[in-house]
Amino acid sequence: MNKAPDAIENLIKRLSKMPSVGSRSARRIALHLLSDKDMNLAPLEQALSYAKERVEPCDLCGNLDVRSPCSICTHAHKDKSKIALVQSVGDIWTMERTGFYDGHYHVLGGVLSALDGITPDKLRISSLLPRLEGVTEIIIALGATVDGQATAHYVAEQVRKINPEIKITRLAYGVPIGGEVEYLDDSTLATAMKSRNAF
Amino acid sequence: MNKAPDAIENLIKRLSKMPSVGSRSARRIALHLLSDKDMNLAPLEQALSYAKERVEPCDLCGNLDVRSPCSICTHAHKDKSKIALVQSVGDIWTMERTGFYDGHYHVLGGVLSALDGITPDKLRISSLLPRLEGVTEIIIALGATVDGQATAHYVAEQVRKINPEIKITRLAYGVPIGGEVEYLDDSTLATAMKSRNAF
Repeated sequence: MNKAPDAIENLIKRLSKMPSVGSRSARRIALHLLSDKDMNLAPLEQALSYAKERVEPCDLCGNLDVRSPCSICTHAHKDKSKIALVQSVGDIWTMERTGFYDGHYHVLGGVLSALDGITPDKLRISSLLPRLEGVTEIIIALGATVDGQATAHYVAEQVRKINPEIKITRLAYGVPIGGEVEYLDDSTLATAMKSRNAF
Repeated sequence: MNKAPDAIENLIKRLSKMPSVGSRSARRIALHLLSDKDMNLAPLEQALSYAKERVEPCDLCGNLDVRSPCSICTHAHKDKSKIALVQSVGDIWTMERTGFYDGHYHVLGGVLSALDGITPDKLRISSLLPRLEGVTEIIIALGATVDGQATAHYVAEQVRKINPEIKITRLAYGVPIGGEVEYLDDSTLATAMKSRNAF
């Protein structure tokens, strides 16, 4: 039984590995890309190639940018005394979009999970601790999930061991229970950021 | 207000132009690709690059392949006396997957549509006519839409002008009214192909 040629099947396979893209969508996308290679495929390939060459994680906060330290870590008007602890880079994008937060970030790269074998050494926790000099507030902006809250407690404990003076806050309830920060609507996130409270 | 750097925003923009991918999915996909460039981004970029270099439409039938004439047109066991008329290359993939058809194809590249300004000269109709030598059956495998059926009538008329002896059939009813061939489940398509009837 014949199918699409290997070059196309391989492209479909690669496309279907992208999150929220199933095998039918991947076929549609492949067809769309190949139907006009100059207009559809080439610009995507160039964007990927450029991002591959240029985009790197920031050595300090873990954000993705074309420079390290990233444009947020080196931003003149960002408040260096505040660090928001987030699960992923997508959370930074969401928070920056709301415009309600003017401090720095620290990307954990995940949350603790016994089930998935995510132990503290697999997260960017040890790289947070040397950044605490001059910091007066750590804002824990993790999802209101069991794993997110367990991670919050663990990180708070580590921070307090180093400097018990640092105020540790978390996003106000308002984050829907079971939800992830990345998918919040802007106004819920902004409200939660404004009414953050002691942890 | 800060957002993701341009290299990433451009990638997100390009990803969101893909069918069935919205701006939120595009952000998730960009993050997924950039989270592990070697494992996620590079293979997709290579697949795109390879497909861009190699995949071309077949000069005869309009199928996409790494050679022209394509592997279906040059296949030793495909019945040259039958040509299935399809709207797009995706329809060929769907039909080849069912394995119920052993003939050749001809990709129209669309259907006639007064609304969208798709006139006969915008479709691959004139390239079908020189292929009729030795053909005994044209199977019209277009969707059961108004435009699909209008196209079927138009093409049938053109074929009959050249050779009134050619049998013109179409997929049996069984194709859901309003549906497109590309999205049929395999068994409905196979049933419709087996009980195709005179047009």
